[in-house]
Amino acid sequence: MPLSKLRLDGTGALYEQVARALRHAILQGLFVPGERMPATRVLAQTLGVSRNTIATAYEILRADQLTVAYERSGTRVADITHLPTRPKAQSATPAQSRFAARARQLPSITLGRIREGLPYDLHYGDPPYDPALVRSWSRRLLAAARVAGPFYPEATGFPPLRRAIVDYLARRRGITCSESDILIVGGTQQAITLTLRVLVDEGDPVAIEEPHYQSLMHAASAHGAEIIGVPTDEGGIMTSELRRHQARLICVTPSHQFPSGAVMSLARRLELLDIASRDGSWILEDDYDSEFHYHGRPLAALRSLDLSGRVVYVGTFSKTLFPSLRLGFIVIPPGLRRDFVRAKCLDDLGSPAVEQAALASFMRSRQFEKNLRRTVLDLDRRRTILIDGLLRHARGRIEINDTRAGVHIVVWLTTLSYPQLERLIDKALTRGLGLYPMHPHYRSPPPRPGLLLGYAGLSAEALCRAAEIFGECLEAVHRE
Amino acid sequence: MPLSKLRLDGTGALYEQVARALRHAILQGLFVPGERMPATRVLAQTLGVSRNTIATAYEILRADQLTVAYERSGTRVADITHLPTRPKAQSATPAQSRFAARARQLPSITLGRIREGLPYDLHYGDPPYDPALVRSWSRRLLAAARVAGPFYPEATGFPPLRRAIVDYLARRRGITCSESDILIVGGTQQAITLTLRVLVDEGDPVAIEEPHYQSLMHAASAHGAEIIGVPTDEGGIMTSELRRHQARLICVTPSHQFPSGAVMSLARRLELLDIASRDGSWILEDDYDSEFHYHGRPLAALRSLDLSGRVVYVGTFSKTLFPSLRLGFIVIPPGLRRDFVRAKCLDDLGSPAVEQAALASFMRSRQFEKNLRRTVLDLDRRRTILIDGLLRHARGRIEINDTRAGVHIVVWLTTLSYPQLERLIDKALTRGLGLYPMHPHYRSPPPRPGLLLGYAGLSAEALCRAAEIFGECLEAVHRE
Repeated sequence: MPLSKLRLDGTGALYEQVARALRHAILQGLFVPGERMPATRVLAQTLGVSRNTIATAYEILRADQLTVAYERSGTRVADITHLPTRPKAQSATPAQSRFAARARQLPSITLGRIREGLPYDLHYGDPPYDPALVRSWSRRLLAAARVAGPFYPEATGFPPLRRAIVDYLARRRGITCSESDILIVGGTQQAITLTLRVLVDEGDPVAIEEPHYQSLMHAASAHGAEIIGVPTDEGGIMTSELRRHQARLICVTPSHQFPSGAVMSLARRLELLDIASRDGSWILEDDYDSEFHYHGRPLAALRSLDLSGRVVYVGTFSKTLFPSLRLGFIVIPPGLRRDFVRAKCLDDLGSPAVEQAALASFMRSRQFEKNLRRTVLDLDRRRTILIDGLLRHARGRIEINDTRAGVHIVVWLTTLSYPQLERLIDKALTRGLGLYPMHPHYRSPPPRPGLLLGYAGLSAEALCRAAEIFGECLEAVHRE
Repeated sequence: MPLSKLRLDGTGALYEQVARALRHAILQGLFVPGERMPATRVLAQTLGVSRNTIATAYEILRADQLTVAYERSGTRVADITHLPTRPKAQSATPAQSRFAARARQLPSITLGRIREGLPYDLHYGDPPYDPALVRSWSRRLLAAARVAGPFYPEATGFPPLRRAIVDYLARRRGITCSESDILIVGGTQQAITLTLRVLVDEGDPVAIEEPHYQSLMHAASAHGAEIIGVPTDEGGIMTSELRRHQARLICVTPSHQFPSGAVMSLARRLELLDIASRDGSWILEDDYDSEFHYHGRPLAALRSLDLSGRVVYVGTFSKTLFPSLRLGFIVIPPGLRRDFVRAKCLDDLGSPAVEQAALASFMRSRQFEKNLRRTVLDLDRRRTILIDGLLRHARGRIEINDTRAGVHIVVWLTTLSYPQLERLIDKALTRGLGLYPMHPHYRSPPPRPGLLLGYAGLSAEALCRAAEIFGECLEAVHRE
């Protein structure tokens, strides 16, 4: 072959680069099987490397069985019968499974940040910034690394963590369950996908609140469920609408409807359980932020009212600690324990051990709840600052339904059209203010535009300023 | 209601216990809607708790909207219209999805330990015991916790870790790829299930080597694939057999067939790529232990020979570090990048950040490879000790195909029947020796019984003794 065609790719040691270039040339058929490899001296000169480098590369090719060394006639290209075909254009690969095809149809998730480094980013999902917590968590990780052990973790989760969660649920959420009902998972998202796999076949009807949590909608759609969007009002999911469908699975956020913020009334909770029990439906209770209630305690969880074992309760540590932790849990209904544990085992054998051990010690020491109480006080103050600021600066042009819970608020823009909303968001962005629209969380946009604003990640001062900039941008859009 | 029926469950604070007991009674209909709740004094006496405890429990019930406080007539049970139905027997819940039904059919995994605390446990999958490594890893975790940040991780993985893997693959496995080809996953198991979801529909044919890795077989079966068992010989998967089927996905372990230990020849590798390219099949290359080659370097990975982009390469850190880490990676074929990233995102949004950051710094500092070189030397020595010991003490009754790779060996018992194998395993267990049979890794048991023995977790001394006990037990079974 013409040696001038050989190109080194610049990654790693020189002899590796030479070996890769020669391997590629052999596989592409640029050397004829049985052809003698170029003398090391010649190749060294052509490529501008030392003869030793070439010799080492030749050893690698021999080890790979791509060449054969003969005592008399030197190194020759091996007798390769099945040369791989040339690559085709890759961009056009069609979806290879129904799952992949459905996943390709999904719109992109809008909960991600619009831009890094905005000084006033009202992005939902950011954890409360707390350097003291990060420090104390690191120390626990260090200790936990020695406790957790190197072996495969239990698929159901680290037993002391499961015990700590049982205790926590009994005290804080009125849920009575045992250690063997708890399955540790990699956050709410894995809880959702495991639930879908265990309970739902392609084509089965799954009821999802409207407005909805996008990652849930995406998971259910990709899974192949037939989505039933059920409207919500200030009492949560409209059970009267639900009665018309026999959903296999009903996904709800009773503590704090995501994203509208509605709290499901007790009457609705009991009616929902009644429907599930009558229709043989299962309920996925996503209790993602019940820890953040600023006025009294949250209502008892659906799971604590459920006597017929239809509720899959899902909790997460993404809000109470950090999203980067990727830890959550499921309280499995009694009849489905083995199915859920199997599904978790088949999915990833179990969640990483060290974080589980660290979290168990954090919960046992009550640091977790102490920290949570402090965070709740702090978030309540910041929420009030943001709401007051927005109302003041918007001068009657917004509406906020404050349900005194969670780590986000919904701001309805009573005087703007959708094109004006776009302009508001763009204008805010140029001023360093990140605003996030509400309508991507609906299957069809609501009549008036709104914003979903998270406030956990910003200081009180930043929130004050954010409200001010918001008012100025809103005024500017109106004047245009 | 008769108050004597109330039972406290003993978990958490007393007032919580009282609230739970009353909630349960109300939901069970033991209180009539509108009925006045018992006076705190009376209930306190009945339950043997203070009146304050009862008062607090009543507050919880009011917050839960289960009772209503009237100014004149005290606290009454709320007007609950939808009382949940009574629980049914739970044990008889049928499988709720086709996935769950298939998962219920799977035999249990036999790679788990037979018993905790055996002094001579030749269990496969235990990592090399190395306290120095655990200490240095803990320190890195501490530093990483400060680097990783609390936010949602990137779904594709921590960028510095992906860069470190690209560099490692180029140097050690001859694989040229870019950072965006790498997807960080929760170990080999998640890599397998994501691959199935992206590439395989229910009923699609999937080729699996025989003997096989059980967790792969289970994942593919639960996924609903039609399993094609393809025999292997000393050259790896028998490509001639494979040609008869048009598999959607072909799952192979070319570096070191699991569990037989065969190394796939170059000719077979190229033929396999040719088949995939011709039939439009995909190849899952599970490169689970290629780092452990004790004689020269391992053959180039299939992925490095693949010019037509059909290979999904899977690597894991369970063998090179710890299984408890739950970290592995996929090198995605060019045409499937978006599909794989979406599937990971839908499954769990991304892997935990801290371990990824720790691993990135471990790999960048070359500690990882330094540690690996030491481990390889050490394991080679222990492997030799075990093989020599077994051959000596078994006195011609066993056969070992030593392919000088991996962290396990296969021992064929040339003189035993299957019932005798059972007796050998039982006898060994009573002497503290853990032996693991080979036949569960076959769809139908091979003609002669064998053992799959892992040696990473035991010291040289323990391995010597294990071989001795093995010889004595084998002798005893023969004498019976």
